[in-house]
Amino acid sequence: MQALMMNSQLMISSILVHAERNFPETEIVSVTADEPLHRYTYQDFAARSRKLANALEKLGAKFGDRIGTLAWNDYRHLELYYAVSGSGMVCHTINPKLFPDQIAYIIKHAQDKLLFVDVLVMPLLEALKPHLSEVSGFIVMTDKAHMPQTSLENVWCYEELIAEQSDVFTWPHFDENTASSMCYTSGTTGNPKGVVYSHRSTLLHALGGSLPDVTNASTHETIMPVVPMFHVNAWGIPYAGIMAGSKLVLPGPKMADGETLQFLIANEGITYSSGVPTIWLALLDYLDKSKTKVHKLSRVTVGGAACPRSIIERFKAYGTTVVQGWGMTETSPLGTVFCLKRGMEDLSDSELVDLQCKQGRGVFGIEMRIVDENNQELPWDGVAFGALKVRGPWVASGYYGMSQEPGTEGCPVDEHGWFETGDVATIDPNGFMQITDRTKDVIKSGGEWVSSIEIENAALSHPKIAEAAAIGRYHPKWTERPLLVAILAEGVEATASEIIAFLSQTLHKWSLPDDVVFVKELPHTATGKLNKLALRKTFEDYQFPESH
Amino acid sequence: MQALMMNSQLMISSILVHAERNFPETEIVSVTADEPLHRYTYQDFAARSRKLANALEKLGAKFGDRIGTLAWNDYRHLELYYAVSGSGMVCHTINPKLFPDQIAYIIKHAQDKLLFVDVLVMPLLEALKPHLSEVSGFIVMTDKAHMPQTSLENVWCYEELIAEQSDVFTWPHFDENTASSMCYTSGTTGNPKGVVYSHRSTLLHALGGSLPDVTNASTHETIMPVVPMFHVNAWGIPYAGIMAGSKLVLPGPKMADGETLQFLIANEGITYSSGVPTIWLALLDYLDKSKTKVHKLSRVTVGGAACPRSIIERFKAYGTTVVQGWGMTETSPLGTVFCLKRGMEDLSDSELVDLQCKQGRGVFGIEMRIVDENNQELPWDGVAFGALKVRGPWVASGYYGMSQEPGTEGCPVDEHGWFETGDVATIDPNGFMQITDRTKDVIKSGGEWVSSIEIENAALSHPKIAEAAAIGRYHPKWTERPLLVAILAEGVEATASEIIAFLSQTLHKWSLPDDVVFVKELPHTATGKLNKLALRKTFEDYQFPESH
Repeated sequence: MQALMMNSQLMISSILVHAERNFPETEIVSVTADEPLHRYTYQDFAARSRKLANALEKLGAKFGDRIGTLAWNDYRHLELYYAVSGSGMVCHTINPKLFPDQIAYIIKHAQDKLLFVDVLVMPLLEALKPHLSEVSGFIVMTDKAHMPQTSLENVWCYEELIAEQSDVFTWPHFDENTASSMCYTSGTTGNPKGVVYSHRSTLLHALGGSLPDVTNASTHETIMPVVPMFHVNAWGIPYAGIMAGSKLVLPGPKMADGETLQFLIANEGITYSSGVPTIWLALLDYLDKSKTKVHKLSRVTVGGAACPRSIIERFKAYGTTVVQGWGMTETSPLGTVFCLKRGMEDLSDSELVDLQCKQGRGVFGIEMRIVDENNQELPWDGVAFGALKVRGPWVASGYYGMSQEPGTEGCPVDEHGWFETGDVATIDPNGFMQITDRTKDVIKSGGEWVSSIEIENAALSHPKIAEAAAIGRYHPKWTERPLLVAILAEGVEATASEIIAFLSQTLHKWSLPDDVVFVKELPHTATGKLNKLALRKTFEDYQFPESH
Repeated sequence: MQALMMNSQLMISSILVHAERNFPETEIVSVTADEPLHRYTYQDFAARSRKLANALEKLGAKFGDRIGTLAWNDYRHLELYYAVSGSGMVCHTINPKLFPDQIAYIIKHAQDKLLFVDVLVMPLLEALKPHLSEVSGFIVMTDKAHMPQTSLENVWCYEELIAEQSDVFTWPHFDENTASSMCYTSGTTGNPKGVVYSHRSTLLHALGGSLPDVTNASTHETIMPVVPMFHVNAWGIPYAGIMAGSKLVLPGPKMADGETLQFLIANEGITYSSGVPTIWLALLDYLDKSKTKVHKLSRVTVGGAACPRSIIERFKAYGTTVVQGWGMTETSPLGTVFCLKRGMEDLSDSELVDLQCKQGRGVFGIEMRIVDENNQELPWDGVAFGALKVRGPWVASGYYGMSQEPGTEGCPVDEHGWFETGDVATIDPNGFMQITDRTKDVIKSGGEWVSSIEIENAALSHPKIAEAAAIGRYHPKWTERPLLVAILAEGVEATASEIIAFLSQTLHKWSLPDDVVFVKELPHTATGKLNKLALRKTFEDYQFPESH
């Protein structure tokens, strides 16, 4: 039996309409390449977004067209989020820090019709000119006074373009499963792959992600996304924050600069922020050095990489709670978030930090499970670890231009409809998930799984070790055993047996590396992560010194 | 362009699955007809709901069948919410306090296949026996020891029925627009009309309604819905509370009893509750009389009727904030809720209460507008008042068995897709909506609208007036002018001109009644509201004493 409820499709434009109507006076503050502290209201933002929608139409962009952006976190990028998606086009955010050939590949693969580009990114784009013949126009995100000289053709100035447009535009209504934005994810192998979000997935993610036990986004918050807007839609804050009527602060290109962050947090009264661990290290180091404070900053969401305990403890001293979360480009990204359950109110400080070190509990909307090699579900006992799989309305069903058939090559969804995250994790009885490794990096030894990350963390606590990577290598009896590859700190020497003896104090016997090899450098990916694929290749013919 | 996100349908059963997995130990406490204080966990609740789903199958209920309930707020009713909807059947909650002929009409109209009945409601049902020939079975919501004698046939005992079932049941997945529950609404005219909710509307309502600035439902709350589960799904708390992992307290049949409410609030540590104004009057009177407290009760949501200022002020003295809301059976019910905006932190106490007296701001998901007689939108200036219209994914598109064609007879949606609430309201520049009248009760005088409620409230502040109703009556020059019909307090006398002189101190000249008629009693509806339709009939031939 069909229900008798209105068929109101979930539209990204409805966020803008609601926000303008209910919070016209709320501020959005931006740092941009051409203005140190730009400030306007939701009302201005909504009117300019409508002008931009008219401008897109004028430039010949059509429903379904991909509109690329190469830009930092500021109000113009925010206007693009709403004008492009609101018009039924696809806002394709591109990371300007990728390798140039990856950027060229992504623009071509997505068939971007127009590119909106930050002034700072223009030199990069000019270098790519021969690869951009299919792009019909470039819009430089600045005003006339700051327009750069350029060898590119079909170039417009953002401010000039929208200045001549009407601010009257009626957002169209259409199927909520229409593509709203896309974001390419690049791994260690192969070409970047495009994740395509929908209006529906974006709105459900914003609703589920704003709940009190998730990010608790409210009109009373001042939110600064330090995670870039080209990185999984800045974790959804440009949607959730506007939906709630929060004051938004967009830090522009200087996101890794502790001084800028402290200035914005203190002067704009930021209560909530989010970013990757390295960003917070920069802020904390600046705070320590400058003896400045971040009084109102009640919490920061940390994701993108495991958050070191030290960051949690250092933030605590400044009165800020670290909320660790886990997600992927393919999960919009919200999968898990740190949140205490009722009954956990009396934890000791160190028990609390232990939990903050985990990746958090599953949010409503995301189902998660861990499975063994035979796809059998493992218990939530905090000990068993297996491949992490998730499903839900904001999880990718496949990549752009690749197979959408579950269980087939190129499709990240298994034949039972679960997305394979590529992570290996434990889940404790309270539902706190902890990533222990990547599926492809876990060391499979005698039917047991050994976490390479656990070995690396233990090794890094040795004062003589500067950097370390653990990989599985062939062993005649156990199939694989762990090999530790380490860089020694400057000017020190060590032996393998000395390191192994040290590790035996903290690691289970089964997780102890069989050997340690010292090297001068370790391979890394474009985004700075250890490239274990390359390392395994280097040590392809390695043999353990003795077989026990 | 289609997005590439999982096609995960929004299912009510997903709330149960999430809750059992993440909060197995969380408590649900109930007062029932057969047990003063029943207590179990989410894990028990989920297992019994699966048993009930198997029982429904055994009784021959099929996908899409309507399953009626005549019951109070307790755990068995909660199990029905999830087992019935989760199985793809329609949980049809019926108000046992309606007139018996209305109940018979509703059961017949919905074609209820089975009826689940509280012991206390059995006598009523037996009296209706001749009208229930199409119902294939009656399940008494109790255990064997408390089974009543009955003249009905095909009767089962709830506890016996589920005791023999397996607790293994896999919730089916299906289209989220499938009917999940239904609730009839009865007005002053015509037969009750059935509103049919979907899985989608219910989940979106739970998500949107749980946001920090709406009800802020979190795992740390202990929530007691005092609004009945047959009244718009207890305003959605059985979904939102379980989704959040809150402790739930269900007060059973004694909901209007101040002593029971105080006992539950104090002993179970209730932090948040919701109900109609009369419930809270009963509680406040009991608190005053017994000198007891409600320490942890931080807020109560009040809806269903305008909340008198005195309730807001009396609750404040007990440390509890009143959150007024507005909604209807047709809006699931959440339309507006009191919530301060950022920048309103420094209001004085009386300014704050002034705002709490309004019906609140529109929640994300509900669009609202006020329009004049020509359907032209009116400004949000707090002065202009017009017909209130809403739309959104949890708003009814029509009634069961009636026209679904917007703008036609019997369909509550106008030709532009807006639901006509039947209320007349103002909206202030901050978005706070205030109901000023019902569309059919507003007095249309010389092209202006006069609020009958404003006149009645002013009249009730006169010490000699016990009850009052204002209606529009024919006037040769102004089409209509207000007539006040009043009941005097016992043993006093008054004249029309005395009352009008008093009213002129607070009402605009235009709103002053042209005459006052004193009567011994006023007509009321089944639910206790003034029946102005009947009153207008009584005064059909009334003529104003002089025409000015």
